[in-house]
Amino acid sequence: MSSSFPHVQPPRRVLMGPGPSDVAPQVLAALAAPTVGHLDPYFLNLMDEVQQMLRTAFQTKNKLTLAVSGTGSAGMEACVVNLVEPGDKVLVCVNGVFGGRMADVAARYGADVKTIERPFGEVFSTEEIQKAVEEFQPKVVGIVHAETSTGALQPIPEISKVVHDAGALLLMDCVTSLGGLPVEIDKWNVDAAYSGTQKCLSCPPGLAPVTFSDRAVAAMEARSTKVASWYLDMTMVRNYWSDQSRAYHHTAPINMNYGLHQALRDLLEEGLENRFARHQRNHQALRSGLEAMGLKYTVAEEYRLPMLNAVTIPDGVDDKAVRGQLLNDFGIEIGRGLGPMAGKTWRIGLMGEACTQRNVLLFLAALESCLQSAGHHLTPGAGVGAANQAYSNLSA
Amino acid sequence: MSSSFPHVQPPRRVLMGPGPSDVAPQVLAALAAPTVGHLDPYFLNLMDEVQQMLRTAFQTKNKLTLAVSGTGSAGMEACVVNLVEPGDKVLVCVNGVFGGRMADVAARYGADVKTIERPFGEVFSTEEIQKAVEEFQPKVVGIVHAETSTGALQPIPEISKVVHDAGALLLMDCVTSLGGLPVEIDKWNVDAAYSGTQKCLSCPPGLAPVTFSDRAVAAMEARSTKVASWYLDMTMVRNYWSDQSRAYHHTAPINMNYGLHQALRDLLEEGLENRFARHQRNHQALRSGLEAMGLKYTVAEEYRLPMLNAVTIPDGVDDKAVRGQLLNDFGIEIGRGLGPMAGKTWRIGLMGEACTQRNVLLFLAALESCLQSAGHHLTPGAGVGAANQAYSNLSA
Repeated sequence: MSSSFPHVQPPRRVLMGPGPSDVAPQVLAALAAPTVGHLDPYFLNLMDEVQQMLRTAFQTKNKLTLAVSGTGSAGMEACVVNLVEPGDKVLVCVNGVFGGRMADVAARYGADVKTIERPFGEVFSTEEIQKAVEEFQPKVVGIVHAETSTGALQPIPEISKVVHDAGALLLMDCVTSLGGLPVEIDKWNVDAAYSGTQKCLSCPPGLAPVTFSDRAVAAMEARSTKVASWYLDMTMVRNYWSDQSRAYHHTAPINMNYGLHQALRDLLEEGLENRFARHQRNHQALRSGLEAMGLKYTVAEEYRLPMLNAVTIPDGVDDKAVRGQLLNDFGIEIGRGLGPMAGKTWRIGLMGEACTQRNVLLFLAALESCLQSAGHHLTPGAGVGAANQAYSNLSA
Repeated sequence: MSSSFPHVQPPRRVLMGPGPSDVAPQVLAALAAPTVGHLDPYFLNLMDEVQQMLRTAFQTKNKLTLAVSGTGSAGMEACVVNLVEPGDKVLVCVNGVFGGRMADVAARYGADVKTIERPFGEVFSTEEIQKAVEEFQPKVVGIVHAETSTGALQPIPEISKVVHDAGALLLMDCVTSLGGLPVEIDKWNVDAAYSGTQKCLSCPPGLAPVTFSDRAVAAMEARSTKVASWYLDMTMVRNYWSDQSRAYHHTAPINMNYGLHQALRDLLEEGLENRFARHQRNHQALRSGLEAMGLKYTVAEEYRLPMLNAVTIPDGVDDKAVRGQLLNDFGIEIGRGLGPMAGKTWRIGLMGEACTQRNVLLFLAALESCLQSAGHHLTPGAGVGAANQAYSNLSA
């Protein structure tokens, strides 16, 4: 039998959803470099460089900082399964899909899970977390820095203090924030954090950067049970990533690590501060445009993610029809709402490579066209006009 | 801080170890195609095509056939964690590193694990497995078709019969055999099997093809506990891969699936029978050459893997020095021995793209050079001469 399928030739998209984001040509080129062995001296050195650059991205000195061989959710599971033994108390703060997922993951591994909840789009106050940790006395507190499902940004430093005052470890999801917003692992005193490559790092999905503090490593070393997941067991994975041992564990995704290496080089070349400023600038311009078109953000202003703009779909506008037209007529992908936001919200990403003035203007122009097709009344040009004005003001 | 690291530029290797194997240029090119979203209609269609081609590779009609978003060991863990609940009896046949790993994975997830063992390099008889299943009455029997750590090929069909006669499910590791040797899931009545992309499929590591029979799916559906691993929970993953639901689970490694799609197209284009014959032919020629150089296989003739040739390192020859010289002077990677074979055995891979007459001759010529450097006495040209004679005889 010969294959009847055509070769891979994807359409050209502008990826402005919740991830994956656009991937730079030099990252795609790195992916396609010839595969070498997972114990090849070249690859072992590349792993060291990836670790060093990840430490810069995470703003940490944590030795145990590496890329898990799976997507962001594997990073979440790696953090949970290494920190938690059956019966351990875990407090999870749920204000979106990914907090809910963390609670599910911890419960599956036998943790005694308690959740505190805020409606989708809101964030937690220090006080409510303080109250919960004092009452529940958990071993680990899990929280999402940037909720990909809602576009909400959770402030961390004060929460970290109350978590540690109660003797717990702080586990943080920074899948969507890493590389687009400050993620200061050491300054904030975060014990374990995980991310994904396909958001603000603008590498294809397939790896999950993680970092663990010395306190987290001590907790792993004090376990009385084996880590339930062999694949994600950091007490073994770290030996492969360690320049001391290099003990074979599993075969790393070689080419994905090539891609991540290049994506991290691009991040450091631009500089973290410049990268964060770019995300803020384009977010402000997009916001001006969307508001001029009458669209409203679903998250309060002080807690909005710059790289993920959740807006309420105007009354009478068909969610799927507009997203379909954006994709089919303009090649632009945006995200739908999840959970209680399904059908009510669009999630517009400005992540990494996709976070450009060009994309902001193109998107606003295309959205105007699609909303007009949907019979929604708009002032022609208002969105683009306001965005251009915002860029002009931001430059002044 | 700007990056001080050079861009990705790996040395050119000839990958003749236990995997990863050489990757074809068209597969590397597919990897570098532009990333699209994980719910993009283009990608959903590509997933369907990957599933159809995987069914051909596995020689199965199993609906639940897909690529797990991790490397081969994640595929192993996916099979175990979906079939096994805490307390379930699992019999694992251990004759190498990967059987041992399967027992470890099952025990971590709370299975009642019993192992039967054969020395590294040997295989199990139907009788000893029949005796063990009758005594232990397991829910699942795990066995390795092609032991990557030893080069031994385990015959499966008769074992499958005794396993099913005892009412158990058969779980098979075919990481190294898929795409290089017949792997007949339906004919052999295998209930769950996993592989990796980086062996005879000649795609970079990063995905794990798996397949589950209807009986295995029924066992999953009859579980009284949630699958312990969220990331690998097939009852959710299958909805994303199903053309009915497409429910978002995790973000698939888009570009890795592009690469696998092309690697599977190449497999089907060549044809399974032609691919298997190519592996046999090059194995026979390599064997003639190695034996003419005085090297001995560690596995009995009737159980040798064509794609992984384990040979005993000659007395007085330094393992690391020879492997280092092969790598540094010729860019050829071969594998070291694992477990009790460490320091005693070389593992010479002829997998997928790397399984060529050119590589057989190059390797024999280079090995002669390295053994001479190591002070080992050889008849000059004996290996290459014998291999060329073997190719000539095989063509006659």
